[in-house]
Amino acid sequence: MKTLLMLAAAAAATPAIKPAPAPSEIVAAAPASDWVAIAPADLLVMDLASGKRVVIQLMPPPFSQGWVGNIRKLAAAKWWDGTSVNRVQDNYVVQWGDATEKKALPKDLVTVPESGYAMEAQSFRDYDIDKMASVTFEEIEKSDGPRKILEGLHKSDAYTTGTDFYVGWPLGGTDNAVWPVHCYGMVGVGRDMPPNTGTGAELYTVIGHAPRHLDRNIALVGRVISGIENLSSLPRGTGPLGFYEKPEERVTITSIRMGTEIKDLPRYEYLSTESASFATYADARANRRDPFFIVPAGGADICNIPVPVRVAK
Amino acid sequence: MKTLLMLAAAAAATPAIKPAPAPSEIVAAAPASDWVAIAPADLLVMDLASGKRVVIQLMPPPFSQGWVGNIRKLAAAKWWDGTSVNRVQDNYVVQWGDATEKKALPKDLVTVPESGYAMEAQSFRDYDIDKMASVTFEEIEKSDGPRKILEGLHKSDAYTTGTDFYVGWPLGGTDNAVWPVHCYGMVGVGRDMPPNTGTGAELYTVIGHAPRHLDRNIALVGRVISGIENLSSLPRGTGPLGFYEKPEERVTITSIRMGTEIKDLPRYEYLSTESASFATYADARANRRDPFFIVPAGGADICNIPVPVRVAK
Repeated sequence: MKTLLMLAAAAAATPAIKPAPAPSEIVAAAPASDWVAIAPADLLVMDLASGKRVVIQLMPPPFSQGWVGNIRKLAAAKWWDGTSVNRVQDNYVVQWGDATEKKALPKDLVTVPESGYAMEAQSFRDYDIDKMASVTFEEIEKSDGPRKILEGLHKSDAYTTGTDFYVGWPLGGTDNAVWPVHCYGMVGVGRDMPPNTGTGAELYTVIGHAPRHLDRNIALVGRVISGIENLSSLPRGTGPLGFYEKPEERVTITSIRMGTEIKDLPRYEYLSTESASFATYADARANRRDPFFIVPAGGADICNIPVPVRVAK
Repeated sequence: MKTLLMLAAAAAATPAIKPAPAPSEIVAAAPASDWVAIAPADLLVMDLASGKRVVIQLMPPPFSQGWVGNIRKLAAAKWWDGTSVNRVQDNYVVQWGDATEKKALPKDLVTVPESGYAMEAQSFRDYDIDKMASVTFEEIEKSDGPRKILEGLHKSDAYTTGTDFYVGWPLGGTDNAVWPVHCYGMVGVGRDMPPNTGTGAELYTVIGHAPRHLDRNIALVGRVISGIENLSSLPRGTGPLGFYEKPEERVTITSIRMGTEIKDLPRYEYLSTESASFATYADARANRRDPFFIVPAGGADICNIPVPVRVAK
């Protein structure tokens, strides 16, 4: 009895409740099995003349694959070598491609119709996840398709009737359609006036508040997973739409290659959005309980829950 | 009769429907009476050693006035002169203040309680708008307080039960409380662990997707209305939380002064959020109908409707 009392006293002397972990601590504590390898074949590596590197993960099937196929061809043709970053618009996008707009494109690029911006909801539900080349077997086994792991967390969204994560990617949708959404760091395809849909030769990434009005109006083909600061910290262009006014302001792109072509590329992983760790992380993003915070928000918009990516340990 | 037919034929020959204006075109066409002058007494002008300038508009009553009063005292005391920008975290914030954390503060700063982060909803409704120094008479006359001019436009928000604009500022709230929200460019008060609320000596501005989880957890005291690119394009810090690791990376602040102390400061105006022009602009942000777009979003979150600010003509 005495021992029990002493134990109780000892327990009372230590804090009864550990501080709740911050989202970053939840991610750091996630088991190795909750991390999914990103195949080098799905990475686009952009090297700038400044010596800086930007790594982009391409959008997985079933979304935007017409454009993604074009991008693979453009990289194989070394088409971007010697092109440049031409536009940096604050709180909006960084855009790169051929500033002359005269460089001949590879002949075998496809033209994707506007219907490719979103996917019919039933087709998405019917999509066979086994086709996903870059998803591990474990991932397939755990996944049950477009699950609503965060249902009730995203209370609402001005742009959709629902948002969710799907094998690492933020999606929005209605009862009838599903589409990838414009969060910070997402990579999209510049285009001319509709019905032009762009080829993929002209690309941009988001460097500001999520411009969700572009959803379903432009193809999203990937996201920057490393080195976005090498684009977001570039001087803003002073011309209309943030285009650089003088050719010498442009940042030359030395090369863009598929990850498989790059020697000693780090192995990247994302935190499975179908994992328990991710659900805990997302909940903590929506309801910060770590000591710095006094009022949990009670929710989070999908772009305020960035999917964690790391270099494999 | 013949004339009528000819007129009809002529009408048919010209496009029946003009292209819908882009949000920027709506703003450009707004009458002078829809623009509200921003008093120089409500501006904070930060000059960097780089020669670049950042102009901040201070939060109007009834929000955050304890901290705003401190900031006025700090500027009058030239307290920031020789301090620096110390932290640049990608997709989050740029933060400035005294890197040594040892500089003595003016003695007359007030300590604001945490209850100052939000306002009781009834107090806000009861607030006498005549107290607002920087609002013109016309503005007062047009305003009917916290109007829901955009009701039905912001379908929903993960962080609030409603959002609205109030004399130029984005607000969120519930039935019981109202608070300013963390959009791109908003300026907040760095602080230590709670119940510390900060003095206003340590400030930051948002340079990424709206970190709305900070709402009601940190005081918002203003927004950058000019020169945010001089902060958002700074090199990212490589230390934890984006702090610069080497003192020489910091950007020295030459001076911070109230707008009234600055010779030849441009006269700034914001588009009255109570004006018809703003309602049209906000609707166009939520439903882009200009020729580039093919699918109007059907809504917009409050941080994707930035309040237009211009230099007076």
